[in-house]
Amino acid sequence: MFLQPTLLLLSLLAPALGHEHYGTTLYPRAEGGASPKFGYHGLEGPLNWYSLDKEANELCAKGTHQSPINVAGASCAATPSSLSIKIPAALHGAELENLGTTVDVTTNGTLVNGGKTSELVQFHFHTPSEHAVDGKYYPMEVHFVFQAADASISVVGFLIELGPLDALLGAVLAGLPYIPSTGNVTHTKPLDFTALEKHFASSGTYQYAGSLTTPPCSEGVSWILSCKPLSVDVAGYEAITDLIKFNARYTQNNEGVNLLEHSAIEQVLARIN
Amino acid sequence: MFLQPTLLLLSLLAPALGHEHYGTTLYPRAEGGASPKFGYHGLEGPLNWYSLDKEANELCAKGTHQSPINVAGASCAATPSSLSIKIPAALHGAELENLGTTVDVTTNGTLVNGGKTSELVQFHFHTPSEHAVDGKYYPMEVHFVFQAADASISVVGFLIELGPLDALLGAVLAGLPYIPSTGNVTHTKPLDFTALEKHFASSGTYQYAGSLTTPPCSEGVSWILSCKPLSVDVAGYEAITDLIKFNARYTQNNEGVNLLEHSAIEQVLARIN
Repeated sequence: MFLQPTLLLLSLLAPALGHEHYGTTLYPRAEGGASPKFGYHGLEGPLNWYSLDKEANELCAKGTHQSPINVAGASCAATPSSLSIKIPAALHGAELENLGTTVDVTTNGTLVNGGKTSELVQFHFHTPSEHAVDGKYYPMEVHFVFQAADASISVVGFLIELGPLDALLGAVLAGLPYIPSTGNVTHTKPLDFTALEKHFASSGTYQYAGSLTTPPCSEGVSWILSCKPLSVDVAGYEAITDLIKFNARYTQNNEGVNLLEHSAIEQVLARIN
Repeated sequence: MFLQPTLLLLSLLAPALGHEHYGTTLYPRAEGGASPKFGYHGLEGPLNWYSLDKEANELCAKGTHQSPINVAGASCAATPSSLSIKIPAALHGAELENLGTTVDVTTNGTLVNGGKTSELVQFHFHTPSEHAVDGKYYPMEVHFVFQAADASISVVGFLIELGPLDALLGAVLAGLPYIPSTGNVTHTKPLDFTALEKHFASSGTYQYAGSLTTPPCSEGVSWILSCKPLSVDVAGYEAITDLIKFNARYTQNNEGVNLLEHSAIEQVLARIN
């Protein structure tokens, strides 16, 4: 993956805080596993991400194009031939790491979107889902994080419902018992992405411009969500919730109004009046 | 159920806005089904409940003992003999209503807690769970809402995991196909609460002083959570998420700090500095 020198330098200086962008030039992978400096409950939780680092996380409170959102089901559009993902089989498995706030897998792949190519950095899981469709959430969601040579980030997301265990998800989740603690790393079983590529191509997509769903909540992220969920069985769901516990940011406003900011203004007015 | 005259008068004047307290003297049941004036996404969502009605919902933004919370698993204590629920079988079923933001069941019953008796008003469902235990959420949660003669409210909550379908939950969920729209009402199959009473008595409880988890977020609510989850099968879970979609408030701070208020103050300081 090509890295711009200045971004590379920045990335070497920046702490590994998040997972939406973990391994991108914004925040490179840390040696020996990083303990993210945010969480999902209380003062570490999403409402307070801004206060955890007011400079770095400014957009978590003040952004106007934040993710996740509640998607309108009617906005699903057929996946054009100019949009595709290509992820070679990981014949010997791939690295699976427990980052504390999620588990992620690092392997190679590409996203081609209208002639622009981005490289797969990692994919990771959320439970329950971060995005909702017509108000409905799903038990899990997986995010494939891609970065282009110009450092722009695209995330391809799949909602995950309960049902038969998807073979690819099964091969990843089978590794969870080996990474019980933050920083633990193991190798997955061999991974085959052929069915996922076809699922993506045939299911249509929701697309919108949003942000990282974890601090620093950077905007300018191209979101591409598959309209059709993958599926996981109860045992796989239990394994993820036992380990990750809960890591979904609440849905943001999709009308260019920041909810935290809106709420703050209302509360300030209440103090004055 | 005995109602204090002034509370009864108030209750007749108040609109039916919520479901945590629906049917209590705070908000009596409306004729023909009420459409709650709040939601779970965007400007109707939990971050903005205060702004929807600044007088009525003041505590949603400014309360310091708000629910739900992330419970410490170690705080589970054996259920004392002075704490029990008694809910007679509903031999001919009970009324099941779609309130838009949840479904609720009205039937009679009592909670005895240290010599104080409260009457069951209704029970209703959340998905995913509102409370978390050691950070872990569950797919569902059911709240049994009780009110005492002094108008104080106690809620007995059960987390619900995936597994064999609990017979009582199954008898309730079987009614969901008959109430597809807000305001729809049906009758459940016969309901037997014997197993639930035993489950409650034998599983231990987490107890804390919190609030309604829906507007107006009133405080002074005695929360009593069973330490052991009930279970529901995948079909029951699908039926609930298809209908309710998502209705869980984010966890609040359990240290007497209001997160929305905290966040607002930080943002005001950022504007001044």
